Amino acid sequence: MTETQTRPEPKAAPDDRKVLKVALLGCGTVGSQVARILLEDGEALAARSGARIELAGIAVRNPDAKRDVELPSELFTADAEALVDSADLVVELMGGIEPARSLILRAVRKGASVVTGNKALLAQDGPALFEEADRNNAELSFEAAVAGAIPIIRPIRESLSGDRITRVLGIVNGTTNYILDQMDSTGAQFADALAEAQRLGYAEADPTADVEGHDAAAKAALLATLAFHTPVSLDDVRCQGITKVSADDIAAAKDSGLVIKLLAIAELVKTSDGYEGTSVRVHPTLLPREHPLAAVRGAYNAVFVEAENAGQLMFYGAGAGGRPTASAVMGDLVSTARRVVAGAPGRTDTATRKLPMVGVDAIITSYSIGLEVADQPGVLSRVAAVFADHGVSIEAMRQTIDGGAPGAGDGRAELRFVTHPASEKALAETVADINNLDVVESVTSVLRVEGV
Amino acid sequence: MTETQTRPEPKAAPDDRKVLKVALLGCGTVGSQVARILLEDGEALAARSGARIELAGIAVRNPDAKRDVELPSELFTADAEALVDSADLVVELMGGIEPARSLILRAVRKGASVVTGNKALLAQDGPALFEEADRNNAELSFEAAVAGAIPIIRPIRESLSGDRITRVLGIVNGTTNYILDQMDSTGAQFADALAEAQRLGYAEADPTADVEGHDAAAKAALLATLAFHTPVSLDDVRCQGITKVSADDIAAAKDSGLVIKLLAIAELVKTSDGYEGTSVRVHPTLLPREHPLAAVRGAYNAVFVEAENAGQLMFYGAGAGGRPTASAVMGDLVSTARRVVAGAPGRTDTATRKLPMVGVDAIITSYSIGLEVADQPGVLSRVAAVFADHGVSIEAMRQTIDGGAPGAGDGRAELRFVTHPASEKALAETVADINNLDVVESVTSVLRVEGV
Repeated sequence: MTETQTRPEPKAAPDDRKVLKVALLGCGTVGSQVARILLEDGEALAARSGARIELAGIAVRNPDAKRDVELPSELFTADAEALVDSADLVVELMGGIEPARSLILRAVRKGASVVTGNKALLAQDGPALFEEADRNNAELSFEAAVAGAIPIIRPIRESLSGDRITRVLGIVNGTTNYILDQMDSTGAQFADALAEAQRLGYAEADPTADVEGHDAAAKAALLATLAFHTPVSLDDVRCQGITKVSADDIAAAKDSGLVIKLLAIAELVKTSDGYEGTSVRVHPTLLPREHPLAAVRGAYNAVFVEAENAGQLMFYGAGAGGRPTASAVMGDLVSTARRVVAGAPGRTDTATRKLPMVGVDAIITSYSIGLEVADQPGVLSRVAAVFADHGVSIEAMRQTIDGGAPGAGDGRAELRFVTHPASEKALAETVADINNLDVVESVTSVLRVEGV
Repeated sequence: MTETQTRPEPKAAPDDRKVLKVALLGCGTVGSQVARILLEDGEALAARSGARIELAGIAVRNPDAKRDVELPSELFTADAEALVDSADLVVELMGGIEPARSLILRAVRKGASVVTGNKALLAQDGPALFEEADRNNAELSFEAAVAGAIPIIRPIRESLSGDRITRVLGIVNGTTNYILDQMDSTGAQFADALAEAQRLGYAEADPTADVEGHDAAAKAALLATLAFHTPVSLDDVRCQGITKVSADDIAAAKDSGLVIKLLAIAELVKTSDGYEGTSVRVHPTLLPREHPLAAVRGAYNAVFVEAENAGQLMFYGAGAGGRPTASAVMGDLVSTARRVVAGAPGRTDTATRKLPMVGVDAIITSYSIGLEVADQPGVLSRVAAVFADHGVSIEAMRQTIDGGAPGAGDGRAELRFVTHPASEKALAETVADINNLDVVESVTSVLRVEGV
């Protein structure tokens, strides 16, 4: 379609559409694409929004630096505050906490609506920023903060606003999905798959934020806040990364018709006194290969939502990258412009109640547990007895003996158990006691299993 | 989660939220669920919308008929017009053209915003209704009209409003997806799979609207209108159903790593003079099994969207059913209520330009063609010559001889060709000429193939 042109419209009446000046803060991978789209697609954006959306300037630390996209040099400025003060709409794509936070507050306090993709800032200070925006009749939108191009924030906030969301499961970090997918398809160890991801540009030189799950945790906090209408911050999210997932774990999962994905999970659960609470966490999770999320390959993202009336929904697409993320920013910008033209910016009012975060007892899932044990009679029965002592029921067991038949190997065997649903507390106690058995060399893995 | 209760909030200040009276028109599978949710979830809906959304009444033909859900009898009325006149918001779930059309016009002309799920009406009269709503500062929303619970209308209208959608491929009819999926997994013929679908309630006693593709065509018209910002009506949609898809077609597809789906397809294509045009059609389509849509099983729906910046996106979920469709209606209702509270209903203004519909020449796809031919030497070369005459290049060929080895059977063989991309015109001419060859008994199937 690249050579195709839109037929010019017959000359319309002189353009009396409102002009909205946009301040763009930051000009990295995403920001430079937003600038390009604003400069190239002005006519279409005006037709769809009812306003002429003009790029007033781009604030960057160094106005003379080289950019991904060629842009007119006169747009650049180092004075972000002056640019914000001159604008009707602000697009914040600097990332990080400061000066992004101060500049967003400066904008909304003068009534300018803001579009941001800053998940770290929102996961830390979202509720305070939302409140300040509402108080000043400004809109704060952030589709780009979770899962790149995938429309997920708006569907949760609007399309599902008349339903009751009970669970959100998201593959929201492309780097870790790429690594796990590589391990699954090639049998590679984590370190090798990570090196490959770094070589291909899917992982940063310092991959900590991705592989330890911190990036996914920020997105989980945002998704939970919106899905359950309750403030959830990064500190509320229990987080475990994928660095300890081994090629053996992946192979054992495969043998059982499962796949390992790093999931951001937000659930409504029952508190100990019987009321609603929420649990928000990020961890490697075993999923049946029939689960819609199991088919999400490479660096793609997907968010699976369960709601009381809608049932199961899934949203799938590119989770990162300059152009996809810029698409999400532009969607927010056009939607905001429409409402500014209509004279009524939307409210952010995400949190209408305060749900308690539940303790480990309330999280009931199945588990897969891998053990290295002495290859001798009676081991299985002793291990099984520990499960029974803690009321944890075993659904399946598989034994692999190093070197082949019993007694033929190096004296060690591997046991893999899948449990029926159990509380995290009961499971942790079971694992601790198993670890203390003299016939157990080590607990090699403990992974949660989600059903379809 | 059924036993879980939301903890009562501390008593708030006296409720000064605006009251919005809702007129519900129709009380079938979806309408009765909408009534139930309005009656049960008032508190949550008020918290999320900022208004008390009150069910003022339900207009039905026979107020005394038995309903799926038990509802207070005093809500029912046969006087739809009086109910509309008394309401702030109208939910139209009667279906059909009249009186739905007149009642929607009556509502928007007095400035009442409307939520509808009436795809037949919108595919016929959408642009006129949208214009009338905008002129009267009323909002007309219709998430429930396409793909049930799946948020697809709002993502296209808002989330992708700053992008350029180039293609939409939708599995938007659950009945036909169920039938094709059954044929694929059991090897059943169409008639048997249809009978099974009817037995299970997935297909109507008169299945014409589903199996002939008419239902999907109405949705295709709506999706194209929104995706390309141009008016597209049902008459613009070329439509072919699944009644001629045979168990042989399905088996041959399987052998080639393909699956047959009934797709609603809307594409931007180049017109003969090099400008943008659009093609909108519904037909059975061969898809590679790796395509995200290939994994959509049973009666589920999914819509796959390609946009210039966002790349490939997919939206998946329940495409029908009372509760899922009611979830979509409620999302529209809460979103509309928020804007009514803010004093600025959204505009529907979907069509900002008029793209030409392109002729068959502009539609370039691969094809799969099945032939029954005489089992004798030289047949393949004669058939291949016809392809060559029309400039249609063959990508793959597979021959199956009835009864086993050449010469051993009943004197007939089956040939299946997959072509490289070709225009529909060239293909139609090729098929006509092949059909005239004396060695060809019949052309058993012609199916389009979409790539990943």
